Amino acid sequence: METFPITFLPDNVTIEAEVGETVQDVANRGKIHINASCGGEGVCGRCVIELREGTVQANPGLYLSDDDFSKGIRLACRAKIDGPATLFIPLESRADSSFFKKASQAEEILTVENPDPMVRQSCLILEPPSPDDNRSDLDRVSASLAELGLYDNDIDLSAMRTMPSVLRESDFKVTVSIFYELPLHKPETPPFGRIVAFDASTSDDNYYGLAVDVGTTSVWVRLVNLATGEVMPSVGDLNGQISFGEDVISRIVYAGRKDGLKRLQMRVIDTINRLLERYEDSFPGYRKKTFLMAVAGNTTMSHLLVGLEPKNIRLSPYVPPASTWPSVRASFLGLNVEPHTVMKVFPSVSSYVGGDIVAGVLAAGLFRRQELTLFIDVGTNGEIVIGNEDWMTCAACSAGPAFEGGGVRCGMRAAPGAIESFLYEPENKRHHLGVIGGVSPSGICGSGLINVVAELFRGGVLSKQGKFVENSSPQVREGTDGFEYLLSPAEASAGDHDIVITEIDIENLIRAKGAMFSGYQTLIESVGLEMGDLEKVIIAGGFGRSLNIENAITIGLLPFLPVDRFSYIGNSSLTGATLAALSGTMWRTAFEVKEKMTNFELSDTPGYMDRYIASQFIPHTDAALFGL
Amino acid sequence: METFPITFLPDNVTIEAEVGETVQDVANRGKIHINASCGGEGVCGRCVIELREGTVQANPGLYLSDDDFSKGIRLACRAKIDGPATLFIPLESRADSSFFKKASQAEEILTVENPDPMVRQSCLILEPPSPDDNRSDLDRVSASLAELGLYDNDIDLSAMRTMPSVLRESDFKVTVSIFYELPLHKPETPPFGRIVAFDASTSDDNYYGLAVDVGTTSVWVRLVNLATGEVMPSVGDLNGQISFGEDVISRIVYAGRKDGLKRLQMRVIDTINRLLERYEDSFPGYRKKTFLMAVAGNTTMSHLLVGLEPKNIRLSPYVPPASTWPSVRASFLGLNVEPHTVMKVFPSVSSYVGGDIVAGVLAAGLFRRQELTLFIDVGTNGEIVIGNEDWMTCAACSAGPAFEGGGVRCGMRAAPGAIESFLYEPENKRHHLGVIGGVSPSGICGSGLINVVAELFRGGVLSKQGKFVENSSPQVREGTDGFEYLLSPAEASAGDHDIVITEIDIENLIRAKGAMFSGYQTLIESVGLEMGDLEKVIIAGGFGRSLNIENAITIGLLPFLPVDRFSYIGNSSLTGATLAALSGTMWRTAFEVKEKMTNFELSDTPGYMDRYIASQFIPHTDAALFGL
Repeated sequence: METFPITFLPDNVTIEAEVGETVQDVANRGKIHINASCGGEGVCGRCVIELREGTVQANPGLYLSDDDFSKGIRLACRAKIDGPATLFIPLESRADSSFFKKASQAEEILTVENPDPMVRQSCLILEPPSPDDNRSDLDRVSASLAELGLYDNDIDLSAMRTMPSVLRESDFKVTVSIFYELPLHKPETPPFGRIVAFDASTSDDNYYGLAVDVGTTSVWVRLVNLATGEVMPSVGDLNGQISFGEDVISRIVYAGRKDGLKRLQMRVIDTINRLLERYEDSFPGYRKKTFLMAVAGNTTMSHLLVGLEPKNIRLSPYVPPASTWPSVRASFLGLNVEPHTVMKVFPSVSSYVGGDIVAGVLAAGLFRRQELTLFIDVGTNGEIVIGNEDWMTCAACSAGPAFEGGGVRCGMRAAPGAIESFLYEPENKRHHLGVIGGVSPSGICGSGLINVVAELFRGGVLSKQGKFVENSSPQVREGTDGFEYLLSPAEASAGDHDIVITEIDIENLIRAKGAMFSGYQTLIESVGLEMGDLEKVIIAGGFGRSLNIENAITIGLLPFLPVDRFSYIGNSSLTGATLAALSGTMWRTAFEVKEKMTNFELSDTPGYMDRYIASQFIPHTDAALFGL
Repeated sequence: METFPITFLPDNVTIEAEVGETVQDVANRGKIHINASCGGEGVCGRCVIELREGTVQANPGLYLSDDDFSKGIRLACRAKIDGPATLFIPLESRADSSFFKKASQAEEILTVENPDPMVRQSCLILEPPSPDDNRSDLDRVSASLAELGLYDNDIDLSAMRTMPSVLRESDFKVTVSIFYELPLHKPETPPFGRIVAFDASTSDDNYYGLAVDVGTTSVWVRLVNLATGEVMPSVGDLNGQISFGEDVISRIVYAGRKDGLKRLQMRVIDTINRLLERYEDSFPGYRKKTFLMAVAGNTTMSHLLVGLEPKNIRLSPYVPPASTWPSVRASFLGLNVEPHTVMKVFPSVSSYVGGDIVAGVLAAGLFRRQELTLFIDVGTNGEIVIGNEDWMTCAACSAGPAFEGGGVRCGMRAAPGAIESFLYEPENKRHHLGVIGGVSPSGICGSGLINVVAELFRGGVLSKQGKFVENSSPQVREGTDGFEYLLSPAEASAGDHDIVITEIDIENLIRAKGAMFSGYQTLIESVGLEMGDLEKVIIAGGFGRSLNIENAITIGLLPFLPVDRFSYIGNSSLTGATLAALSGTMWRTAFEVKEKMTNFELSDTPGYMDRYIASQFIPHTDAALFGL
């Protein structure tokens, strides 16, 4: 097979590529990131690259204008190698992960008192064997555990093989680590104790667990001390799968390709492995003493992590293969931990209400609140839980990518360069921008979009229908996609082009917020209650504190309630995973939460479509719902 | 490194060997069997070979006469490669395994009704998913199991990965295999159910287990049908470890060498794998449907099988690393079965009362007998159990190899060519021989030795002290080791030399029988009873029916009791393993048996040495014990 050198700029990395390979595949092989929202299907136009030298085989297709094409713009997922080439990956096609470094420093450090983790370490001071007491080593250990109220039902062969020498090296003073396996079903079954390690030392009482949040976009890991309950700052990074598509549907499609599932699995494993490495500086060798990894992810992420074919998740009637997960040795999946580290994955409720939400509800304590509470995770796949200690209902709504800056002309993730805050002065028709990182703006993120739309609506620049009011502002102009508002001209921007918000962008946002709002409306009315009955609204997920509550109410994303009923919970999935790592009781509770939640498939629920249509205004057709 | 071709006759196999390797090591590499009773320590002289051409580096040492040495006789464990050579392995250095083929045909076929194995298969006819019922595949399966009174606490990842496609291929009619893990300790803990396989077929209700008896000398495997309880004929072969030494002590010594443990483990795994292959003709593909392997072996064999360093077994105070064993996937150890096959190893009582005896006691039903019963397994390591449903005591006694033909000038195993039966006519001072396989005799086996000594004692040829009575028989003559009795002259024998029994052979036999007898005497007196109180004697082990009870009483090996109190149980270790494969209840009972047995270390028990010394006569110093 003939190969050619392909050089990627600005990294200046050259990779030998075969004729016929796509540029995206070549970049993937070289671990060079190019965005691919649609998973390489050629339909999102997010993977633009510039051909600087040489040649690739391509045609303009649907997403490129002839003008762009003539300037050398190509789609990485469609362009095929047919000779040597030098390709430039522009900023908008590259993910920015600097955000993660900053975020992990900003986090506050918690300590949980009296942890009761699924793995327990116990220091044993054993009577050495004698002619009067020549029980086997293992019987001696078991008897000593029994005196402490502990027990072992089984033992890892690897632990057993080290046992005789560890006992004798340490003069029969050893630390035994026992994993108490909690059953998937039959919660009344007592945990099944399994010795997973012997250690000669009895002096150091630190041992660790890991909490992991596997998000579609980003992955977060947090080290916790199971002995003391101390919680370390988390570390995060983009999920390496993002090169294969930005949303779960593109990942599921990609998993159906040859070796697709294996590749996706390896990508997320690689991501976690890189994050694990980051703790080595502060906690050298911590992995030898790490026995547990509690992982929360949405249903698709959980399938991809353990390597389970996810295709039925997206096929009607949306039946996921699994919603509970076996105990797996994390090293078996390729995670760079010791063989004694057991991985527990949070149970899911349904195809689109996953373990991340179960973990979130656990973190929010929803299952033990008396107030009627709405828990929401706003995103491409928005999840909603309504309930209290007595009952819970949940649903997922497919909001589309607008909240994450997708389907928006100048949309981008909440990374440096994103316009996040926006103030409009109606009196002099001027605006002020706030940009993440304080740099020149290069686009607008989801929370920025909400703020812009709310301000322009209040300022009379946008109508209830989401259209620009004629002559309302000098920034409004007619563009290629109809009317648009100029946020930042090219000369003030990083990306060398005007940053605008178009009527199509606003339509997408209205669709997204309407999907969420009609979702909670459906759930709450299905139990015979009204929006006003909500005593508490907990906002989880990527938005976090960057979501301006008042603006979100203004556009009709959040219900019209006093602002003091709202609270933020941050990365509740990671917090839930942290609690489960520290506490077997919490892990059991996660299963109770799963069992308690009644899932609604909104698309099959009578009334949802009507409510959705009624929501396609700012803030809503029924203005009374918003006190107007 | 320089290498030379070494050819082994009579197989005519040539192996390239490095300078300095021992002939034994070269033969091992080529899987050519040469006996090595001492494990290659150069002290048993059992591995003689003849140098036919070329050269090896060696000196006569302790075991070879100068005459033999000059004829080219060498010890394989001492001779080192220093050039090309052709070596002949004589009959006496080769093990004969033809016995095993015959034995497996002779066995009777049992059927156990209503098996309750640790693994259960269940055919599920599931309602396919629909919009009204979109539970995950696994939740659907679990709910259906619960309706049948079954349950799953966990699932193998490999089973989970096949689940979605198996369910859909089979139209949601599947067979689920669940392994119910019984805990090592805390028997009141309910079994932990783990789904290990999904199968699309629901029509065939056969699934299998394997019972394995790993003996120091031989290995037996038996296939059982877990659905019907049918028990197939067993297959057996020499334990491949035998090239590294004939008794457990030599194996433990060998395990301490570099890679010794690994090699021993691989040898027994190879042996079992060859035996597994033998069922393929009658049960093609049976391994796909085999879920359980119940293994009984003595304490050392169990350690070597799972790869656990056994050295402390032979060091005072004789503490074995383990006496219970984890559940292991048999394939993980290299056994040629599917990953879903779980291996359970019988618990041991002590370093020298192993899982084979626990299995034997299970097979003999000792734990539920009302009669006071003596259970004995006569061998190099003789095991004794005395008790009934209320109590059990046990001990091991180091009888030495005489019962297996070891330490006996013309001794051999009970294989074709071994003199087994013997009749002496005192009136005309002639004898008649019975030889296994009806061929020319080549040696004498353990049961033959007992018969010869008993007959010669009764015939007045041997004294109470085990010495030949002067002029008592024309066959008595003075040989190189003192007086001896000529059983078969060279011209009538296969091995080209006279077959004799010497006074030293008889001393070895008296030591061996005395060790056993004083063993039961000690146990029974320790509980305040007498030999005459024994209501039942069950004889297990290699001897089987070839042991002549009256002769064994005559020489003082068995206690002086009416013959109708004795019975044979054959390979009770394999029978016990078979019961455990078929029945989880039996497996639990094995643990009760282990817990119930009080172990005596005879060497530490007051009175044992005195009783042993008193036993060093035919039949005993205290003739009254034998009704004389």
